[in-house]
Amino acid sequence: MTRSIPLKPMDGFPKFVEFREEGPREGFQIEKTIYPLDQRAKLIDLLSETGLRRIQVGSFVSPKYVPQMADTAELFDRIKRKPGVEYTALWLNEKGFRQALAARDVHIDPRLLLYASDAFSQHNNNCSAKAMQARQRDWITLYRDAGYDLDSAYVMAAFGCNFEGDIPPEKTHDIFRWVIRTCAEMDAPLPNLFIADTMGWATPEAVKRMIGAVRDLAPEARIGMHIHDTRGLGIANLHAAMSMGVDLFETSIAGLGGCPFAGHGHARAAGNVCTEDAVFLCHEMGIETGINLEKLIEAARFAEDIIGTPLMGRVMQSGGLDAYRKRQT
Amino acid sequence: MTRSIPLKPMDGFPKFVEFREEGPREGFQIEKTIYPLDQRAKLIDLLSETGLRRIQVGSFVSPKYVPQMADTAELFDRIKRKPGVEYTALWLNEKGFRQALAARDVHIDPRLLLYASDAFSQHNNNCSAKAMQARQRDWITLYRDAGYDLDSAYVMAAFGCNFEGDIPPEKTHDIFRWVIRTCAEMDAPLPNLFIADTMGWATPEAVKRMIGAVRDLAPEARIGMHIHDTRGLGIANLHAAMSMGVDLFETSIAGLGGCPFAGHGHARAAGNVCTEDAVFLCHEMGIETGINLEKLIEAARFAEDIIGTPLMGRVMQSGGLDAYRKRQT
Repeated sequence: MTRSIPLKPMDGFPKFVEFREEGPREGFQIEKTIYPLDQRAKLIDLLSETGLRRIQVGSFVSPKYVPQMADTAELFDRIKRKPGVEYTALWLNEKGFRQALAARDVHIDPRLLLYASDAFSQHNNNCSAKAMQARQRDWITLYRDAGYDLDSAYVMAAFGCNFEGDIPPEKTHDIFRWVIRTCAEMDAPLPNLFIADTMGWATPEAVKRMIGAVRDLAPEARIGMHIHDTRGLGIANLHAAMSMGVDLFETSIAGLGGCPFAGHGHARAAGNVCTEDAVFLCHEMGIETGINLEKLIEAARFAEDIIGTPLMGRVMQSGGLDAYRKRQT
Repeated sequence: MTRSIPLKPMDGFPKFVEFREEGPREGFQIEKTIYPLDQRAKLIDLLSETGLRRIQVGSFVSPKYVPQMADTAELFDRIKRKPGVEYTALWLNEKGFRQALAARDVHIDPRLLLYASDAFSQHNNNCSAKAMQARQRDWITLYRDAGYDLDSAYVMAAFGCNFEGDIPPEKTHDIFRWVIRTCAEMDAPLPNLFIADTMGWATPEAVKRMIGAVRDLAPEARIGMHIHDTRGLGIANLHAAMSMGVDLFETSIAGLGGCPFAGHGHARAAGNVCTEDAVFLCHEMGIETGINLEKLIEAARFAEDIIGTPLMGRVMQSGGLDAYRKRQT
């Protein structure tokens, strides 16, 4: 190692950050094209070799509305399993959950999905945010009956919404408060609390304030973030979250993806924070991730090959810095 | 205004940030193609309407090595002047400086150019960093004789260099120390001190440490930053600099550009931090810029039209947030 600057993480930052890869699901779900199964399987196989511990493979959702994900069960059959890696899926109703249970070796990570925006809940679920919230009690029961504890609870559009505008922070706090209280009432262990900036409304300062507030509500909870880079602030928001000790992020290889119902704008700019850029940031700050950046870059370049147009990731273009460091020795 | 969250800048952040636009020079200089003069003039005219106060139009440099900039004097003839906007140029030797003086209404902003990396100085100037440093005394004298005070002193590759690897922070501090001492010795007012991450080696924490150190060296100096987004950390580094009170940045519309001699990698990823994304960040944090974001987005989209391939700016794809806010009223 020829690095000449110190690599001890700064105070406040975590020593280790966990990245959960969302690209194969978020990335291909938003595209109009249906990409070949074997290419998507190969991308997941490449990701399995990077050191990532959790990869979201696809969705068990309506093939009518999301035909891109209709072959998710087949994809679970096709991928090569790497020991230690959890392969997960998304579902939005009980039918989807049953499909996930029936598919081959799906790591079940039960989630609660809550909305800070009524209008966005209407778009995604055809019901109000309050009605969606009420349904989550049934999900807790359903998961428990199937033998699973909750993994994570998400508050989506936590900062703002293209359909509804700015979301007052108190509204988001109230929903997290509801999650905490409901889990206590139902005697369910508190899941990871995910703050989701679904449509790119957050700023670093808003992120820090939100994390502080959620931590005050549940000091013992693990906080995660799901950040979209819709307006270019993704990596700054992720850095701000880390400065508050957050050590759990959902990101997308090469910056793939976005939610098909979240955008009014151009899909190209709607993806998640780019996994390899975020991992690069961590490594340069001396924060461990357990991930091999070079292998991640290889997977990112393959993702770009599949899509066939430039994606938003930067490190996959310019390379990391270790190659330059090695050259000096 | 329908914004429902408070907009008072956070402690430590400046209330107003000045952006100096580098796109027309950095952006077209790096491209292999020579883009039509009238298109580049039109981009500058669009930028003149945004509220930007300083726009770098082109370079007076060797037409042999940088043919893209051979028509800079003509460009200065062609552009429409907006009162209150300063139109600047880059030069690297006395001949270039004389050309700038001779061209029509060039705002002369004398600069000292220093290198934290020997290898990069060799590449750019065919001399060592120390030799380049020694020459700066002659520049101070030359500028003074022509009737100008220094505007800015740049330390390039302040964090790291693709040719030399990590730059120890003390090396960069020493160069700023030299600038401060030399200006005092020569009885020249201290210029803006620009920390330049020319090849994308900085992290937010390294940026904060560097700014703290430079401020300790010269508490009265105005600090600026020139940040390249080579590895996706540009906006996070800019945010980190603002958190330390820095209120002066050089950026590029649509993320255009990069230094043609600075990259080993793919040019696409080598540009400056994107002006409109940075302005968006400021406005969302309640920091004023004097700039109209919608007009900036219009200029960014025109820049993309000129280049003809997707550029890296995000806000120009997704739009700002005020349009969504207006919809709610």
